[in-house]
Parts: sequence; structure tokens; C-alpha cells
Amino acid sequence: MSIRVAIAGPRGKMGAEAVHTVMKHDKMELVAVLDYKEVGKTLADLEMFPTSYTAPIFTDMSELVEATAPDVLVDLTNPHAVYKHTKEALHLNVRPVIGTTGFTDEQLVELSAMAKEKELGCIIAPNFAIGAILMMKFAKEAAKYLPDVEIIEMHHDQKLDAPSGTAVKTAQMIQEVRAQKMQGHPEEKETLEGARGAELDGMRLHSVRLPGLVAHQQVLFGGDGQLLTIRHDSLNRNSFMSGVAFCVEEVMKMDQLVYGLENII
Amino acid sequence: MSIRVAIAGPRGKMGAEAVHTVMKHDKMELVAVLDYKEVGKTLADLEMFPTSYTAPIFTDMSELVEATAPDVLVDLTNPHAVYKHTKEALHLNVRPVIGTTGFTDEQLVELSAMAKEKELGCIIAPNFAIGAILMMKFAKEAAKYLPDVEIIEMHHDQKLDAPSGTAVKTAQMIQEVRAQKMQGHPEEKETLEGARGAELDGMRLHSVRLPGLVAHQQVLFGGDGQLLTIRHDSLNRNSFMSGVAFCVEEVMKMDQLVYGLENII
Amino acid sequence: MSIRVAIAGPRGKMGAEAVHTVMKHDKMELVAVLDYKEVGKTLADLEMFPTSYTAPIFTDMSELVEATAPDVLVDLTNPHAVYKHTKEALHLNVRPVIGTTGFTDEQLVELSAMAKEKELGCIIAPNFAIGAILMMKFAKEAAKYLPDVEIIEMHHDQKLDAPSGTAVKTAQMIQEVRAQKMQGHPEEKETLEGARGAELDGMRLHSVRLPGLVAHQQVLFGGDGQLLTIRHDSLNRNSFMSGVAFCVEEVMKMDQLVYGLENII
Amino acid sequence: MSIRVAIAGPRGKMGAEAVHTVMKHDKMELVAVLDYKEVGKTLADLEMFPTSYTAPIFTDMSELVEATAPDVLVDLTNPHAVYKHTKEALHLNVRPVIGTTGFTDEQLVELSAMAKEKELGCIIAPNFAIGAILMMKFAKEAAKYLPDVEIIEMHHDQKLDAPSGTAVKTAQMIQEVRAQKMQGHPEEKETLEGARGAELDGMRLHSVRLPGLVAHQQVLFGGDGQLLTIRHDSLNRNSFMSGVAFCVEEVMKMDQLVYGLENII
Repeated sequence: MSIRVAIAGPRGKMGAEAVHTVMKHDKMELVAVLDYKEVGKTLADLEMFPTSYTAPIFTDMSELVEATAPDVLVDLTNPHAVYKHTKEALHLNVRPVIGTTGFTDEQLVELSAMAKEKELGCIIAPNFAIGAILMMKFAKEAAKYLPDVEIIEMHHDQKLDAPSGTAVKTAQMIQEVRAQKMQGHPEEKETLEGARGAELDGMRLHSVRLPGLVAHQQVLFGGDGQLLTIRHDSLNRNSFMSGVAFCVEEVMKMDQLVYGLENII
Repeated sequence: MSIRVAIAGPRGKMGAEAVHTVMKHDKMELVAVLDYKEVGKTLADLEMFPTSYTAPIFTDMSELVEATAPDVLVDLTNPHAVYKHTKEALHLNVRPVIGTTGFTDEQLVELSAMAKEKELGCIIAPNFAIGAILMMKFAKEAAKYLPDVEIIEMHHDQKLDAPSGTAVKTAQMIQEVRAQKMQGHPEEKETLEGARGAELDGMRLHSVRLPGLVAHQQVLFGGDGQLLTIRHDSLNRNSFMSGVAFCVEEVMKMDQLVYGLENII
Repeated sequence: MSIRVAIAGPRGKMGAEAVHTVMKHDKMELVAVLDYKEVGKTLADLEMFPTSYTAPIFTDMSELVEATAPDVLVDLTNPHAVYKHTKEALHLNVRPVIGTTGFTDEQLVELSAMAKEKELGCIIAPNFAIGAILMMKFAKEAAKYLPDVEIIEMHHDQKLDAPSGTAVKTAQMIQEVRAQKMQGHPEEKETLEGARGAELDGMRLHSVRLPGLVAHQQVLFGGDGQLLTIRHDSLNRNSFMSGVAFCVEEVMKMDQLVYGLENII
Repeated sequence: MSIRVAIAGPRGKMGAEAVHTVMKHDKMELVAVLDYKEVGKTLADLEMFPTSYTAPIFTDMSELVEATAPDVLVDLTNPHAVYKHTKEALHLNVRPVIGTTGFTDEQLVELSAMAKEKELGCIIAPNFAIGAILMMKFAKEAAKYLPDVEIIEMHHDQKLDAPSGTAVKTAQMIQEVRAQKMQGHPEEKETLEGARGAELDGMRLHSVRLPGLVAHQQVLFGGDGQLLTIRHDSLNRNSFMSGVAFCVEEVMKMDQLVYGLENII
């Protein structure tokens, strides 16, 4: 039996991708979408979707749930809306799969308690790229045995900040388990400043920016006579969508709230 | 307090490396070595070792243990000798760290029971390269989420067999968890035979052989819009030795026999 | 002074990209486009282009040239149309930049003679990706010194043929200069058939197919104690467009026909 | 007919490797070696060489040449000795292959004039690793078309200086042809200092230092939708020796002095 899915924000960039993902998935059925304003009766009324997309559009979640009985609500809208949506969904016995950051700690505690009481699965994930999550998880694991690590992240040259959030997050996850040490030769010298990259707790982070790149990261672990490399290349937004599909299936088996994909992978 | 280590087969290629490893390790002490014949009183009598290596050489394990009270026996000799050594060591309350394949199932069962009864740690490991073990472990884990996988292993051009044992072992470990599927386009065609590599349960394995290469492997996982790569480069024999040192420390905390480093990493 | 460019086939996938490329280029001006049928007065009449794209649409090349005096004609249409277009353009003193295969040898001889007589530059290029051309050129050069070479090409799993055309072309270019030899150990054995890949004149070619991949190739050269790798990653169609822009500038400095970008790079 | 080779400094690290290289080469014959002091009659008298190595040892070059008539002198000794050796060799009509830096400009001018007058080939090469030379050459060529470039060099963690000499040399060679530009986003910000690496004329250089690494460098070129990577891995000293053998063969075809392998490759 297929999972009945509702999607909030079907006209957003990510929401629209989610619509396509669910429509193409053979174990899921798109039963409804939630929009914040009247834009049509079904997705087929919107120019951006094919006429074969006939899921009805609602502006009120209670009505949506009553009329279409979804199992899961996928919400990739903004931080502002998702808190309310998550609460409503849990209240109406629908399992939320939420892709955003920006919840306060209080909100998370409240939603977590609510999911527990209702014995409903609920996934809140700032990052849906399964490959990236696996890279971070493996890096954390490897650092226990090979504590010399450098991170090279590579992005398009329109990115403003360096290092990337994922690189810092990876280093922080490694930091939790790695025997603290300063890497490199104690007397090493930079003849050109910055050559050895940024330092985080003795580890080194390097940020490459070039046109043509999308979003890539490699974590290198060196040991006696060997090198272990874990690399993730994200080439387009689809990498997110397989994570969304994975969560829709997982949330059906869960009976509480989980924050972060790394905790169910 | 440092761990008291004895090494069997100090004149073998791997044994000699193990001698150097223990001598340089600040948490270990080389208290004795075991040779199958009389070759001198201490390692210093052998031309291959510096005169500062003063560990005594024994040809009988009981005498060795009585005289030097080692905590751990490291044995990197041949399959023929190790069974006897392992049994003797356990009997004498010394924890074995054994680097060989070639035990029969009966022998493993017997040694396992013996370790359990004595409540002694005992590690038997066909492969001590921690990085390679981690690569295989991570590959198995990743395949649960990203079932499309190809393996590229690369070795020097003096290697006779293709694919490598490690590549096949990796594929088999993946096979245990991967949803069975044939990869690639169902109608794909090789215009040059062999282009798509070897097939193992729908996965593809590719063997590169070039002068200059040592021993390298990458496992590639493809998903929607993303690629996850796990790569291990083994550049020299030292990669083995950090695994040996790791096991000497681990075996002290254990009270039973473990076969394969993947089970304690 | 900017280069006056006309584009044939503005509604095709590649043609439309070329329109955008020229519009955004600060040394070029899009003076007109050529379509095979009446579709509007200017590009702005077409829904696929912004209203700021005001280049007039012609269906006849003589009229186009008379009215807008282009320096260069970029033609990315089909093999059928380009021969006629190239001839007309040269006749009207416009320099052609043509992206297609499929000319007969006779046609190439004729067009070449025509360009020579007119002293007009003319570029016919089956592949506009400058990075890919450089990869092949460098590979050919490297093979003179490091004759042990293997090629790994990697594409999405919807690709039907293996190895890729670029991989075969690269091997053939290497073949022109490489001391003929069979690589690998003379007694090497495949325990799984196909592991060593396809063979072309003693070289080995490996084809990886995974979802998430786009179009990638690496050429590996092994020598005593060293490895040289030349790799090209093509992540989207834009890689073609910088080659088109490069040719528009180059063709202005030339006075004859050149076939293949590798001859002007 | 094989090339008659003499080697200066056979007991040095590099000299000894050269002895092995020439002994194993089927187109070369080791006719003599030059040492600065009396150490034996032939190489077989030295413990470091097998007894089958019977090349006579001389301490005077004139005597060496008179007795053994070498075609080529390979000199991998120190800067102090090589100038004198090179001069003597040219004077005695022997072609020098010299592996050192440290000549003054005056010395190079003098030796160059001498080689020209004698019409003798003479190669002076600071770096014999052919793969590294090719990498630098290709990088310089690629930068003409793809001016966005970053260099990542990776070495063992005992290396003191960063970036490596090869990385800086590569950047300088690129600088000669690259349209000057500052890379990355004009408003990019380092949230951790040094993340974007060292800067050389707008290019970025990153230095990775890890145990297990030997000497590796990759040069990355980014363009619209594509990436070109040129990578060299030097895994041991043998990478030098194939360059030496190459030079011994090349110098026989030359009639003048060449400084730097990049000028004959």
C-alpha cells in the first residue's frame, strides 16, 4: 500500500521538486497540497505542472486532512510557517517531514513532546542530502582511528563565505571524537600566508572557489603509509529529493521526533 | 604502564617491521622475540637490527613467557606455526594478536572457546590496514542508502589477478545489505568488450594496472544529483603496522576472540 | 569594437544557449537570428526569450546579411542545414562558426577552398568543450613520455554505449604517438571477466555508469614511482558555450577553414 | 649500440639509484664511476652494490675518460663539484647530464658557449620527474583558455615550508600567460582565517600536510560548467630515475646546452 503524502508550498523551488518526486515514486501517492493562498483547484491549474497532476490545493490544513487523509506532510517552506504546520499536522495525526532550520529550542522541545505523546514519527532535517550526511558520519567514525585530518571543500565562485557550513559542521563532528592535536610539523612555515588553510582545533580546512564547480567536499585522513578519503559531490538539487523520499518512508516507522538525518541513517 | 609485547618471527619481513613498530611505541615494551631456531642471544646479535635492540631471543614459548612475562604475543609468521603459537599463548595467559589467514573453522572454534574460558582477548586479523577496513565498512553502510555502486581498484602492473581480493571482499560485504539490482541502462551496449568491467551481483568492478601505482581502491556510490566516493590509498607496508599497534592496545581490553578487524573498529 | 554575431536556429536547445551567451558577452552583439520558418519579428516575440532580446528574426540569409551585416554566423543546427548555411555565409563574406559533425569529405574540401579564396576564417567543431579538447591534447602529449595509460570515463546510467566517444577518440589520439605495447603483466588473469576493461591497442578503457554522474573522464599515466592524471568534468551544457564564444573571437583573426578545436588550441 | 655512461658520485643517495638505473637499462652500459676519494677498484668492492657491478672507480676524470671512453657523464652530486665536472666533461668531449641547481648565471653562460663550440649536448635539470614537468607545462597551456585556477599540493607532514616549491613554480609559469585577475567573489569572506589559501597574483594555493602522503599536486581549472584537473603523484624516488634515463638518450641527439627539462619535453 502506498504512502499518502501532502506537500506544503508546492509552488516554491524545493516544494515543486518534492511534488515531482512524490508523483514519480511508486510507493507514494500525492493526495493534496497546501498553499497559503487561493491559486487554483488542483495542481493542473498551475502552469508550472503538467495537466496530469490532479492533487487538490487547500489553504487550510484541517480541511486538507479531513478531505484527503494524508499519512505524511512534507513541508519545505519557510521557517516562519513550518512551526505552525508541524504542530497542526501532529495534532491531526499526520506525520511531518520538515526541511528547514530556524526552530527555537523551545519549539523543538514542545514538538518533541507532542510527537511522543501522539506516538507519531516526525523528522526535522536541515540537510536532506543523504550522501553528505553519510560523508560526515563516516568522517566522524574514521577520525577515531586516523586523527590526522584535512578538509577540502570546493564550491562555485559565487559563494560568499569560506569555509562552507558543511565543512565546519564536519570538523565539529570530528572534534567530538578526535584526540585533540595540532597537525603538521611544529616548525612548519608559510612562505605565502594562508597556504595551510584555516585551522579548527588543530585540523585544517581549505576552500576552493572556481566557476564550474557546484558543491563538493573531501575529507582526507592520513596515517602511516596510507590515506583514506571520503568525498561527496552534489551536482544538483535532486540530491535533496532522494533524502526527502527516504524520510517519507522512514517517518512511517517512527513514533517520535528526530532532529537531523544523521540520527536515523 | 606500558604493554609488554613479545613478537614471533622477528626475522620475517612483517615481523621485522613489527619489531621496529613496538620499539618506537611509547606505550609498549618489546620484552622478547620467538624464533624457530637459534640465531643469537638478543636482537642486537642480528645484523638486521641496531645494537640498541636488546630483546632476548627464545625458541621455546614457555621459557619465553616464564622469563619475560609478556602481556601480548604478536605473531605475523606462517599459517602453519600460528595455530600452535596461539594455543600456547592462551594457555600461558598471554593475549595473541595474529596476522594471518589459513585457520580452519575447527581451529577457530577451539581457540575461541579457549579465549572465552580464560577470559583473554585474542585478535586474528587477515588484514591490519585500518584505512582499508574502514573503507569496506563505510561502503557496506553507504550501500543501504545508495544502492548504485561501482568499484575501481588500482594496482601496480606486476599484480597478476584482477579484480583484487579487497575489491571482491568489498563487493561481497556490500552485497549483504544492498537491494539486489542490475545497474546501468538495461539496453547498454559495449562497443569494445569489457568496457563496463566485471559484474558481481549487478555491481561493476574495474581493475587498473599501471607502473607507479601501489594499492588503491575507490568505491563510488551514485544517487540523484550526487556522488559519494570512499577511497583508500595504501602507499607502503607501514599502513599495516599502525593496525598492529592498534590491536595490541585493544586486545588488552578484551576478554574473548575476535576474527577480523572490522568487528572491533 | 564588438563583433557582430548572427545565430542560426535560435529555438533549438543549443541555439538558445548560444543566444544567451552572445547577449551576455561584452565584446559581442547579437545582430540577427536565422530561423527556417516565420515565428515572429524579433526574439522578444518568442516566449522563451526575455522581451529585452530584440534581435530581428530572418528566414533568408541574404536578407539577414544585407540588413544587419554580421561578422560571424554561429550555426548549431542540424547536419542537413549547416552545409548550405556555411556556403551561403562564406559567399556573403560572413565567417562561419559551425558546431556539428556530418559533413562529407567533399563538402569539407569545397568549403575549405572557398574560405581560402575568400580569405575568411571558418571553424567547424564537433566538440566545443575547451576543457575536453585540452584533456585530449595533453593526453596525446603525455603518452610520448609515459606510454602506460588507462582511461576511466564516467557517465550517468542512461548512457547506452560504452566506452564513450570521447574515450575512444582520446585513445586514438594517444595511439598516433605512443610506442605500441601491451600493458599489464603478460600473465595477468581476470578472475571475474571484464575486470581489466576494454582494450584498444594495448591500452585499457573503463566505463563507469552511475546515476548522479554527468560526463567525466580521467586519463591516467603510470611511470616509475609516479602517476600523472588528466581529468575533465563536464557538469552542464554551459561548458560548450565558452567554446563557442572562444571561436567567435578566434574566427575573426583567421583567414582559412579549421576543422576541430584541437587545431587552434 | 648502447650508450656508454659514467656516473659521478656513485655512493650518494641519488647517484646510487642512477647506478642501478643504468645497470638495468638495456640501451645503456655503465663503463665507469667517478668518486672524489679512493674507495675501491670497482663498484663490487663496495658493500652497497652487488658483486656483479664491475664498473671501475676513478678519482680523476681525464683518466676515467681515457680508459673507458664514455658518451655521457651523469652527475647528481653537489653544486660545488658539478661545475668543475661539467667543464671537464665537455672539454673531454663527454656529454653531461647534470641534476642540480646552484649554477651562477656566469657559469651557465660559459658552459653554454662551451657546449655550442664543441657541438655537444648538455642537459642541466633541477627536476628530473617527467610527470611533474608535464603537469607544469600543461597547466601553463590550460591557463590560456581557462584562467580560473587553484593549486592544491599535498605532502607528508614532515615538510616544513608551505606552499611547496613546485606549487609556486607552477603558479609562476601560469602567471606568464594568464590574463591577470583576482579570483573568487569580490565580496567573499573568510569566517575562519586562511580558508581561501595563499594568494599569488589572484590565484589560490592550498597546502595539505598529512602523514602517509608523499608528494602530490593537483592544478584545477574551472570554467562554465566544466572542470579540468591536472594531477601528479610522486610516490618514490624512482620517478626521478626515468627522467635521468630519458636525458641520457636525449643528450646524445643534441648539440647544445639546455637548462630545464621543460625545454626538451
